[in-house]
Amino acid sequence: MVGSNNAITDIGIGTMPVLIDESGRILLIDQRHLPDKFEYFDATSFDDMVHAIKVMVVRGAPSIGVAAGFSLAWESEIVARMSPSTFLTALKERGDRLKETRPTAVNLAWAVDLIINRAETMISAEGIGDLLQVVNRLKQEAHKIMDHHVEVNKRLSDFGAQLVSENAKILTHCNAGSLATCGWGTALGVVRSAHIKGLQPEVFVDETRPRHQGARLTMWELKQDNIPSTLVCDSMAGHLMAQGHVDLVVTGADRIAANGDTANKIGTYNLAVLASYHKIPFYIAAPLSTVDGALESGSGIPIEYRDQSEVLMMSDRFITVDGARAYNPAFDVTPANLITAIITEAGILRPDYNASIKDALATAFC
Amino acid sequence: MVGSNNAITDIGIGTMPVLIDESGRILLIDQRHLPDKFEYFDATSFDDMVHAIKVMVVRGAPSIGVAAGFSLAWESEIVARMSPSTFLTALKERGDRLKETRPTAVNLAWAVDLIINRAETMISAEGIGDLLQVVNRLKQEAHKIMDHHVEVNKRLSDFGAQLVSENAKILTHCNAGSLATCGWGTALGVVRSAHIKGLQPEVFVDETRPRHQGARLTMWELKQDNIPSTLVCDSMAGHLMAQGHVDLVVTGADRIAANGDTANKIGTYNLAVLASYHKIPFYIAAPLSTVDGALESGSGIPIEYRDQSEVLMMSDRFITVDGARAYNPAFDVTPANLITAIITEAGILRPDYNASIKDALATAFC
Repeated sequence: MVGSNNAITDIGIGTMPVLIDESGRILLIDQRHLPDKFEYFDATSFDDMVHAIKVMVVRGAPSIGVAAGFSLAWESEIVARMSPSTFLTALKERGDRLKETRPTAVNLAWAVDLIINRAETMISAEGIGDLLQVVNRLKQEAHKIMDHHVEVNKRLSDFGAQLVSENAKILTHCNAGSLATCGWGTALGVVRSAHIKGLQPEVFVDETRPRHQGARLTMWELKQDNIPSTLVCDSMAGHLMAQGHVDLVVTGADRIAANGDTANKIGTYNLAVLASYHKIPFYIAAPLSTVDGALESGSGIPIEYRDQSEVLMMSDRFITVDGARAYNPAFDVTPANLITAIITEAGILRPDYNASIKDALATAFC
Repeated sequence: MVGSNNAITDIGIGTMPVLIDESGRILLIDQRHLPDKFEYFDATSFDDMVHAIKVMVVRGAPSIGVAAGFSLAWESEIVARMSPSTFLTALKERGDRLKETRPTAVNLAWAVDLIINRAETMISAEGIGDLLQVVNRLKQEAHKIMDHHVEVNKRLSDFGAQLVSENAKILTHCNAGSLATCGWGTALGVVRSAHIKGLQPEVFVDETRPRHQGARLTMWELKQDNIPSTLVCDSMAGHLMAQGHVDLVVTGADRIAANGDTANKIGTYNLAVLASYHKIPFYIAAPLSTVDGALESGSGIPIEYRDQSEVLMMSDRFITVDGARAYNPAFDVTPANLITAIITEAGILRPDYNASIKDALATAFC
């Protein structure tokens, strides 16, 4: 299986970034090397998964959540054997280590908390007599998180496709496709669903410096699906819009506050301001697991700052002078007032987001 | 002289991108290879200069104008020897070839027209009896164009420095330094003048995809001058502004219409929209030779589209999938209503630009 390309174009769900192979290993597509190389990274060991999330072998808020769910469930077996008496404490410590890898995306914490809650519930009901049974249930839970994502992404994408007109020109940023979201995609899921509906969308893809997720991953996924795509530099969005080449903008999300403020890949906020100026709809597409109801607004979202070498270098070569300093926020926050709608599995949410998000959370399977 | 670095930090005028060496060769700093390699490109032959401008050995609207002025004056000597009877016709044909190399910047056409006008004036007054005397005068004229730029840039930069407060954080795009403008700089000239005044400005430098003039050239010039600088990706401007890290934006210009609409490096328009949204002043710094009074508005400015390989590749490596398509406008147009002021050698122009530009042109040495 390693090295194969499991994309099923047009009718498939896209390429799954996380999978469990026949011998129970947790394998991640190494997204750092796409599209040059398609290869899997073995993240079965807990430390390897922590490393893989940090260095972005796996990336995209939902995919990180799925990977973390598997990792914690798999690790629970080791913890159960090594220190059964302190099982929950040890599991929580592992959960915290996972949460610390990437601070901005909330899905990671969501998946970790879900696994730990399940463990707590089972142990409080049944005790720690048969921990391996708990472990098995946690593993099933991790699989359910993945299956849930595919289903949820398909559902939200069908809603999103209702916002796409025939021959729409869509601008997107970063990668919110199958690779980022564990099946189908969110922003790219909307494109995929519109394509399958026969709407013939065309996509402008922001290259998404510094790590080029748009150029490398979104362009790759769109090619898999034979959806027409054009790569642009992040600096070209305003000109594209002014020339009338953009009908709508859609991106994914890493964390959505209760009021609709949304953290996503650095550069998203630029697009939201530009779209607003040009009166072009700006949509966020994300599962409800991306909502952090505990946060009133985006000002509370922690922004990850990554190593400046990502900005100073490109393709392993320095692009600037020796000793240069760089600034490297990995995310920015788009205020709710710039977001035309948030596309979720519970439907298309509109302002006032405080109310519409609350309603959606109350009705959704989450 | 070839291979040396003639920058004089702090008190100098910066590194001159065009120079005439002792044997009368026209040498250009090969700006494609900075900061990795500092080397000169011999553009003495007319065909080599046409190539050098097209592939951006020399770039930056004013520097292209200076280089074209030298090239046409030098070429006039060859034309005078080969076809004296059709001297003016042949010279105009060469001028047209130069103008076609890069359609957006107006300084190129300005310098070409200036040389041809001088030739016409002299010939109509004195006939073609002593063409070599005409040639010598044209060469002097080309030198005057260069000297004029240094003087003009210093003057406009001193005006611009009045807009800079102490410890100002300045965001700039592309390179409008000495390399682009033949001495001192325009946008970067404002920074340099503010620095010399002791205002201690700090500069955020947009890397400026696809060709990285910010990362490669502006970062290099600021390092020469020991002015604190931080490299950012073009996608980070909105976040920087929202965080309060930007006090003003200043860029150069490639062509300014009579109403103040301004063409400049792709990405400038994004910054103007973002600055307006964040109520941050957005300034254009450019000599009056950048004004194209014949154009009512920016919609008439021809935008150069360059080869898509510039977007598809980085450091000679593809960054995306095989067969990908890309869009590569080299410039965009910022409408006058987003420009807080235009900094020129005749002073700081404010809206209504139709009036203020007209007044400036009427009073300026141009």
